[in-house]
Amino acid sequence: MVEMNSIATEQMPAQTANLLAAYADMYKNELIHNILPFWLNNSRDHVNGGYFTSLTREGKVFDTDKFMWLQGREVWCFSYMYANLQQNEEWLEMAKLGAEFMEKYGRDADGNWYFSLTAEGKPLVQPYNIFSDCFATMAFAALDKALPNDAYKKIAVDTFQNIIKRQHNWKGQYNKAYPGTRQLKNFSLPMILCNLSLELEHIIGTEQVNSFIPTVIHEVMDVFYEPNSGLILENVALDGSFSDTYEGRLINPGHTIEAMWFVMDLAKRDNNTALIHKAAAIMLNALEFGWDKEYGGIFYFLDIKGHPVQQLEWDQKLWWVHVEALVALAKAYTLTGEKIYAQWFTKVHEYTWSHFRDLEYGEWFGYLNRRGEVSLSLKGGKWKGCFHIPRSLYQVWNTVK
Amino acid sequence: MVEMNSIATEQMPAQTANLLAAYADMYKNELIHNILPFWLNNSRDHVNGGYFTSLTREGKVFDTDKFMWLQGREVWCFSYMYANLQQNEEWLEMAKLGAEFMEKYGRDADGNWYFSLTAEGKPLVQPYNIFSDCFATMAFAALDKALPNDAYKKIAVDTFQNIIKRQHNWKGQYNKAYPGTRQLKNFSLPMILCNLSLELEHIIGTEQVNSFIPTVIHEVMDVFYEPNSGLILENVALDGSFSDTYEGRLINPGHTIEAMWFVMDLAKRDNNTALIHKAAAIMLNALEFGWDKEYGGIFYFLDIKGHPVQQLEWDQKLWWVHVEALVALAKAYTLTGEKIYAQWFTKVHEYTWSHFRDLEYGEWFGYLNRRGEVSLSLKGGKWKGCFHIPRSLYQVWNTVK
Repeated sequence: MVEMNSIATEQMPAQTANLLAAYADMYKNELIHNILPFWLNNSRDHVNGGYFTSLTREGKVFDTDKFMWLQGREVWCFSYMYANLQQNEEWLEMAKLGAEFMEKYGRDADGNWYFSLTAEGKPLVQPYNIFSDCFATMAFAALDKALPNDAYKKIAVDTFQNIIKRQHNWKGQYNKAYPGTRQLKNFSLPMILCNLSLELEHIIGTEQVNSFIPTVIHEVMDVFYEPNSGLILENVALDGSFSDTYEGRLINPGHTIEAMWFVMDLAKRDNNTALIHKAAAIMLNALEFGWDKEYGGIFYFLDIKGHPVQQLEWDQKLWWVHVEALVALAKAYTLTGEKIYAQWFTKVHEYTWSHFRDLEYGEWFGYLNRRGEVSLSLKGGKWKGCFHIPRSLYQVWNTVK
Repeated sequence: MVEMNSIATEQMPAQTANLLAAYADMYKNELIHNILPFWLNNSRDHVNGGYFTSLTREGKVFDTDKFMWLQGREVWCFSYMYANLQQNEEWLEMAKLGAEFMEKYGRDADGNWYFSLTAEGKPLVQPYNIFSDCFATMAFAALDKALPNDAYKKIAVDTFQNIIKRQHNWKGQYNKAYPGTRQLKNFSLPMILCNLSLELEHIIGTEQVNSFIPTVIHEVMDVFYEPNSGLILENVALDGSFSDTYEGRLINPGHTIEAMWFVMDLAKRDNNTALIHKAAAIMLNALEFGWDKEYGGIFYFLDIKGHPVQQLEWDQKLWWVHVEALVALAKAYTLTGEKIYAQWFTKVHEYTWSHFRDLEYGEWFGYLNRRGEVSLSLKGGKWKGCFHIPRSLYQVWNTVK
């Protein structure tokens, strides 16, 4: 029933048996028979276009606001799955439903993407958050790959250029930091640019991507990397030095782990074995640092010096952290052949599949407390949508098969 | 040893025995022998003036940033205790240590209070948050009561007038809401103005306070009150109607409970028995709605329709919620004589004293998980300082004695 495109698989060193091959089918089946149908059935706005993403455990819409992060991510997801997994016309229609809504209502006069809109498309929250633009770029680049169209290309490229233009002061008037006292830079944007440049390669060309990647890799792997701990910091001083402040001490293990599979993708593209090993090792450091030895699962936030963090939700177990770890471990194992990554994959797989999956109503929970009990039963909200889980299921399947 | 000023006590109806009188001494002792010494011993910045408020469980400084909310609140606390509880010169010196730092470094050129400063007093975060100004007003008004001084009076009054001027658009450039699409107003500022006007009465005069109070009471008790549920909403549409959105559905039981004792204070001042009973009843509604029937304690955030909330920390048990409930229940019982409030006082007292107090290192924990286990062991941070606990201990003692 499922027709596969020809997809390049990750390169497993020839001498090693694939310890993770047995997982492939369950990841693909979960994607095709549980996750994608949940969003197809429950998130469509038949009246206005676009998607509802605030869905109860059962899949009912409990709030109709439309968050641009999640609109863009769902367009990306259905476009990507159409282009890479199966040319299912329903998926392409689903992607277009969101893209048309985004194109019509999503931007201000300067091309910045709003943070949220009403169900009808009226702007609610200003474009204070550049990640809305990042996910819009991904959305239109992926849709253009599924269904080539100059209008989609133009939106993707214009938005990408706008991100590059805004990258050093993207908060603009909404920046609350007093100028000059403590200038920090944040890991999120370099990290996402790693991934974004590859998504755009078919439009902007390999040459431009190649010219862009070394800086991004340097930022992520040198500037934000803290050599004493082997961890990546969320925020550093402008000169790259450690800032002994709430922001400077912050470790977000999931963020690091996700970034490291982006870096492994870039390193594989360059046949850079040393960089693959470095990224895999940093990923493992973050996972070991972030693993909850008492209850299992990966903490959301930690302080590198062990002090209390600002984030009250620091000890919660979030869906995206765990599914990104599965991708990173599958890639690290397949690219290096080192058993430690396969062992950790099995451990994280068991925690994740036994705690996050909702056997009763389908899809996965997003927010567990420290003990792994469901804390918020929503399937989608302001931040959880149709993105990390399907992307992870696809990536793991495509890596280990 | 402790010399008391003459303090007007709450009026207990003559026919009722005081069911809570037995609690008086333990509240006063906890305040004088545990809480105030902890802050006196651990929060002083001997070098720069002002206070460190990021303190570990043991009382050690783990971060040196100075948050204006907490600077103002600690000035208020030591000034208030000096003026109302005991003329302890160490307390007055402590209040002045913070006030001098605030006066010197705390404001921008327009008199707006920064959100945070470095240890040395350099501005870190812009004045995006008008509650910094509210706590600065309280600080200097209270210090002026302890140690009358025209400079303190002027800071308090100037800041208060600035709050009034900014009250309808206090976020200014930092407001992310797109103009006109969904105009909501928030409960926090009217609530705090209730309390603030009384703190300033000795400076601005009774006439001005009297002219100010009816509007504030109307806002809190009519506009934000939702009659079907008997609860108070955190956000309503500009015309006072219910907004079926994440913000509009939000219930913050602790916020309501705290506001209701402010209203009881205002009602008592006006001999308005009906308003006392109404405020006490709403407080009880919020407490019953917010009480965790499974693990005990009061939830932090809930959705009035039972939907998932945005706040990941919704089910945590916070110190301020519980100690404000103790004040509200003590006042409700003493002012109405109704046993239900004494019964709830005992229940909340038992939960609070058994879960939040740190018997090993003194002071109280701030952040417990749903089960009542310590989630963050800090004694002070960005939001918890020397304020709610000492104020509550004083208010309960002064109400039930």
